[in-house]
Amino acid sequence: MSATWGNMLKLTVFGESHGAAIGGVLDGIRAGTEVDEQYIAAQMARRAPGSKLSTPRSEADAVEILSGVTNGRTNGAPLAFTIRNRNTRSGDYSQFAVTPRPSHSDYPAGVKYHGYNDFSGGGHFSGRLTAVLVAAGSIVRRELEKHGIKTGAHLIRVGNAEAERYDPQSPSLCTDTAQSILQQIKDALERGDSVGGQIECAVCGLPVGLGEPFFDSVESCLAHLLFSVPGVKGVSFGGADDAPSAFGSGFNDPLAVREGRIVALTNNAGGINGGLTNGMPIIFTVKMRPTPSIFQPQKSVDMEKMQDTVLNIKGRHDPCIALRAVPVVEACAALAIYDLILSDKNQTVL
Amino acid sequence: MSATWGNMLKLTVFGESHGAAIGGVLDGIRAGTEVDEQYIAAQMARRAPGSKLSTPRSEADAVEILSGVTNGRTNGAPLAFTIRNRNTRSGDYSQFAVTPRPSHSDYPAGVKYHGYNDFSGGGHFSGRLTAVLVAAGSIVRRELEKHGIKTGAHLIRVGNAEAERYDPQSPSLCTDTAQSILQQIKDALERGDSVGGQIECAVCGLPVGLGEPFFDSVESCLAHLLFSVPGVKGVSFGGADDAPSAFGSGFNDPLAVREGRIVALTNNAGGINGGLTNGMPIIFTVKMRPTPSIFQPQKSVDMEKMQDTVLNIKGRHDPCIALRAVPVVEACAALAIYDLILSDKNQTVL
Amino acid sequence: MSATWGNMLKLTVFGESHGAAIGGVLDGIRAGTEVDEQYIAAQMARRAPGSKLSTPRSEADAVEILSGVTNGRTNGAPLAFTIRNRNTRSGDYSQFAVTPRPSHSDYPAGVKYHGYNDFSGGGHFSGRLTAVLVAAGSIVRRELEKHGIKTGAHLIRVGNAEAERYDPQSPSLCTDTAQSILQQIKDALERGDSVGGQIECAVCGLPVGLGEPFFDSVESCLAHLLFSVPGVKGVSFGGADDAPSAFGSGFNDPLAVREGRIVALTNNAGGINGGLTNGMPIIFTVKMRPTPSIFQPQKSVDMEKMQDTVLNIKGRHDPCIALRAVPVVEACAALAIYDLILSDKNQTVL
Amino acid sequence: MSATWGNMLKLTVFGESHGAAIGGVLDGIRAGTEVDEQYIAAQMARRAPGSKLSTPRSEADAVEILSGVTNGRTNGAPLAFTIRNRNTRSGDYSQFAVTPRPSHSDYPAGVKYHGYNDFSGGGHFSGRLTAVLVAAGSIVRRELEKHGIKTGAHLIRVGNAEAERYDPQSPSLCTDTAQSILQQIKDALERGDSVGGQIECAVCGLPVGLGEPFFDSVESCLAHLLFSVPGVKGVSFGGADDAPSAFGSGFNDPLAVREGRIVALTNNAGGINGGLTNGMPIIFTVKMRPTPSIFQPQKSVDMEKMQDTVLNIKGRHDPCIALRAVPVVEACAALAIYDLILSDKNQTVL
Repeated sequence: MSATWGNMLKLTVFGESHGAAIGGVLDGIRAGTEVDEQYIAAQMARRAPGSKLSTPRSEADAVEILSGVTNGRTNGAPLAFTIRNRNTRSGDYSQFAVTPRPSHSDYPAGVKYHGYNDFSGGGHFSGRLTAVLVAAGSIVRRELEKHGIKTGAHLIRVGNAEAERYDPQSPSLCTDTAQSILQQIKDALERGDSVGGQIECAVCGLPVGLGEPFFDSVESCLAHLLFSVPGVKGVSFGGADDAPSAFGSGFNDPLAVREGRIVALTNNAGGINGGLTNGMPIIFTVKMRPTPSIFQPQKSVDMEKMQDTVLNIKGRHDPCIALRAVPVVEACAALAIYDLILSDKNQTVL
Repeated sequence: MSATWGNMLKLTVFGESHGAAIGGVLDGIRAGTEVDEQYIAAQMARRAPGSKLSTPRSEADAVEILSGVTNGRTNGAPLAFTIRNRNTRSGDYSQFAVTPRPSHSDYPAGVKYHGYNDFSGGGHFSGRLTAVLVAAGSIVRRELEKHGIKTGAHLIRVGNAEAERYDPQSPSLCTDTAQSILQQIKDALERGDSVGGQIECAVCGLPVGLGEPFFDSVESCLAHLLFSVPGVKGVSFGGADDAPSAFGSGFNDPLAVREGRIVALTNNAGGINGGLTNGMPIIFTVKMRPTPSIFQPQKSVDMEKMQDTVLNIKGRHDPCIALRAVPVVEACAALAIYDLILSDKNQTVL
Repeated sequence: MSATWGNMLKLTVFGESHGAAIGGVLDGIRAGTEVDEQYIAAQMARRAPGSKLSTPRSEADAVEILSGVTNGRTNGAPLAFTIRNRNTRSGDYSQFAVTPRPSHSDYPAGVKYHGYNDFSGGGHFSGRLTAVLVAAGSIVRRELEKHGIKTGAHLIRVGNAEAERYDPQSPSLCTDTAQSILQQIKDALERGDSVGGQIECAVCGLPVGLGEPFFDSVESCLAHLLFSVPGVKGVSFGGADDAPSAFGSGFNDPLAVREGRIVALTNNAGGINGGLTNGMPIIFTVKMRPTPSIFQPQKSVDMEKMQDTVLNIKGRHDPCIALRAVPVVEACAALAIYDLILSDKNQTVL
Repeated sequence: MSATWGNMLKLTVFGESHGAAIGGVLDGIRAGTEVDEQYIAAQMARRAPGSKLSTPRSEADAVEILSGVTNGRTNGAPLAFTIRNRNTRSGDYSQFAVTPRPSHSDYPAGVKYHGYNDFSGGGHFSGRLTAVLVAAGSIVRRELEKHGIKTGAHLIRVGNAEAERYDPQSPSLCTDTAQSILQQIKDALERGDSVGGQIECAVCGLPVGLGEPFFDSVESCLAHLLFSVPGVKGVSFGGADDAPSAFGSGFNDPLAVREGRIVALTNNAGGINGGLTNGMPIIFTVKMRPTPSIFQPQKSVDMEKMQDTVLNIKGRHDPCIALRAVPVVEACAALAIYDLILSDKNQTVL
């Protein structure tokens, strides 16, 4: 019902964390689009595990393209790719069918699928699936960049640390992580704990008028995709988090003519009015929960005996999923914008 | 491209603020479902304008059902309905094609549609379209209630005023507005200003396992619909707004067996794990911007002369769109949940 | 699930034969498209009942546009319209819930909807719904014509009478009905019987390359829509009916350069190769069953007593549904082609 | 736009004839469904090339399942599979970008994709893609069989040879090919020619009421999928080919009570009334064109010089695509019926 996303650009994802492979089918990219495998690999490396602050599970995350590309360019047919799973250790997960990990998919997935779901590493619910988003996103993102549409994201909050936000009218698109934020993650890791995070993302260079009324507002399309990313629990556009306390006289973005173009003098709308892009940068933030898997004893239940128990999780887990989600959020933004461009009957930007 | 929403339940909306009528087509309701026109009217009245704190535009908002109902029950065919527009005054809006209202759809819609769009009252971008959501939502909501699934929303923040939140594990579903919040709206109205607001919504009595991986997480489906509502700029599930600063040891919801059922002892997840309902109440908040139309001079542009100008808006406008959006948010929740139930191949709850 | 059709152009239909109104919502037409109500009315008149050879039920079939049009042009918002039902006589139909009409929807619809469906005039299954297709189709068809894409259909077979087919490489698009065919219908009417029919349709002036692989071949998209028309039981493209007996050496369409353009010297493919338009006219035929309602005693069942019975149908019925389906088939062709043009990312024809 | 088909069951296909692999993603199968790899292999073998009467290209067509299956049963996640291409010879096809094969996708695909499409073996337009339909179809077909829903198809016409049709009320589901038909194919092969064919298919054991009004009639859903199969040019349900000459008094299917069940005494409707299954076997035929690739000189064009030329095709081609399409048609029927069952909110058959 739901492995496929998009209107004119469609992405279908598949795979389980510890299965043979994960992958995707990307359908609708214009024929003749260059596919730069080095660029894809570079984006994959940004999301890949293996650093000191992520899961010790180490994977090359090599993207194998099976179809849709001829001589380095898209050929108009669906572009399918796989990423083989290596270094899998399904033995770590057998107990969770009986004693679900708190705040994890184990319990509702087990009920939904009558126990037939793959519990190993969260199966299809694993954050590993976001590698597919990055692979697909990097293909369209590269093409958007060639047409002047750029995307960047960075961590602005983790635990008690905050980083400076982008200038909402002229974002730097710097994607580095502040030292104070890295320190929070290290601290959590050392305590056997995990920590949440907030990512800010900007998209610059957009044409005016993307988005479709009523149900396909830019906010709706972006949020739908972003909330598919495991761990994302909040999405806010522009000054949304301050909006409930704000007054129109201060929150409205005044319009002006500057260098022959219509611009907004502030960007509380996050680049979107009436669900349509207004030419200003799209700015949004994503709030992610702490990794549910922690290395401290937790209250859970034994579903066979139907009684309370205490769960100790072993295995390999990121202390902060938000850290590796930065390129995933960028990929979501690129995918959504590309689809909105193709869906706008008047757009000639691509 | 986008007038239609949903998978197994589909809602198609139409209409402009000052056109002949707005309306919708609701397809996929089970045949034999009771359609209680009094219940619908009661919900419509909650959203209707006419109070001292909303636009003076007064409309009965009578829902005329054209098809899909026989002898008071759905007959399996699409249920179409209209709400006639009365009391329209399109003269108020003629200037906005040239001098767009800041933070409003005027500018991007004019670009997108090459000026052919209906500027009167915002046309199809008007908040008036949310009456269609309430009408459609009240039909499925009534049926959900009969099966024990209940929805409620209320304002928790407007300007400087805050109201008490629901208990996330056992929400009261009270929909009243606190006096302090009403006072903030009155104050904004008197100043010719507008004010934002935050709505909290809860859905109780849900089965475990609703939601479809990967792209149709419960969060994705709800957020897609909620961000269609004009003025909604942020959506947060459970404890999302605190999540970036939280640690897993405190944010995880411990599981326990209580009275023979598996429950979570806290509800930071807002009733959703891995994108699936976990049987706890769904809790989310919606952050809405202040109404863009205010009665103070604003900086805008003259698009014919391509120069800066000052705009004074007349007409009728709500000082706080969040006030009337409370039943709209409830309607969105009911529509999304009904669709998720029908889309879950194992559900027998309806 | 199914009241909505289309990708970039979406049509949602609603209504029952003897309900308040039938109608549709057409979403995705380019903003600024002229809506010529006289043209629509003329197409509606071609399908309308009232002639000596159709049902005596007489209706003006006036199309009321509720939204989506400003100053005679589409405004980018969904275009909703209704056609009020007048002259309804639901008393004629009450018996069919118990004793279904053979070859009619009565029996399977009653089972599917547990008896809650509207049996009056076939309810939502009535051929009357095709008036919605004609109304919607005439809006896009007019626009296609302005861009040189023309559609025409005519009856080529009814009972024992046949009419001359179009020249498949240069169709005349004449829509008249041959006298011999009208005589067959008259004869059937006089006998209290009904008769089937075959309609040929051509679309000329098409660009090369419409259609999307794999599942949205031109044939798939056209056939999906055509088989939605009540009574259509067969769809054949080009020389399909002769194809099983043909050899490649005779059936292939040789290519040639004529006046600087690539053309096919024959058109057995019906203008479609590999599911894509090849620039030749699209040619297809539609085979329709005789009207199931006849004025002769028929074997049926009494579902309450679960025993055999004999049914005598009264009421008003067309002796040949194919006669009035000619403009419906043209409307389907126009809708499908318009959607395929919008769905082709490289098309600039509109 | 179009690599994905289905509502509640979704199939996404990918691959080119001479690329790395073809494959599919099947989403929506109930969790816990047995996946019998031997059954799949047996169905694949029925479609596989390698016999004397098909292309000499010989491939094992081994289906590798990448996801969606745990311990031999579906796990609720999308089921992805690939079929590696071996024995590819892309050198055979280089000329067709300049001199397109008559009645083949070469010309329109080259125009549509500005020459970026993969011409090797027809690329994504190759009949080889139907192997994906057979693989996916065999998974759901096996499950339908367990619930008493059986599918069978056979060749009823090739060239001048005809085979006996199924009894429309009680089809035998024999899938053998008549000797006279095989002889027609042999003769065509010897002449360097190709020949068309007509396949009859039946589906038995269906519940009453499958199909959704208005646009998702059983005929629409089946035809959409069938016309995706390369070479299919006509689809007819029940007695459709005779319907234009028939009268209602002879074509209507009388109803009767037999052994406590309601049955139709004839089956001219092909098991479908008003777009819904009526409990009788679904019967339809598919008409396929002769293979466009023949070993005789053909008139074509040189698109670089824009002048007429003569084309001689070499390579490996089936003399009759209909022969290998028999299991493909069955697979389409199984996929469409499975989707219709899941889409019917009242069905409990699976």
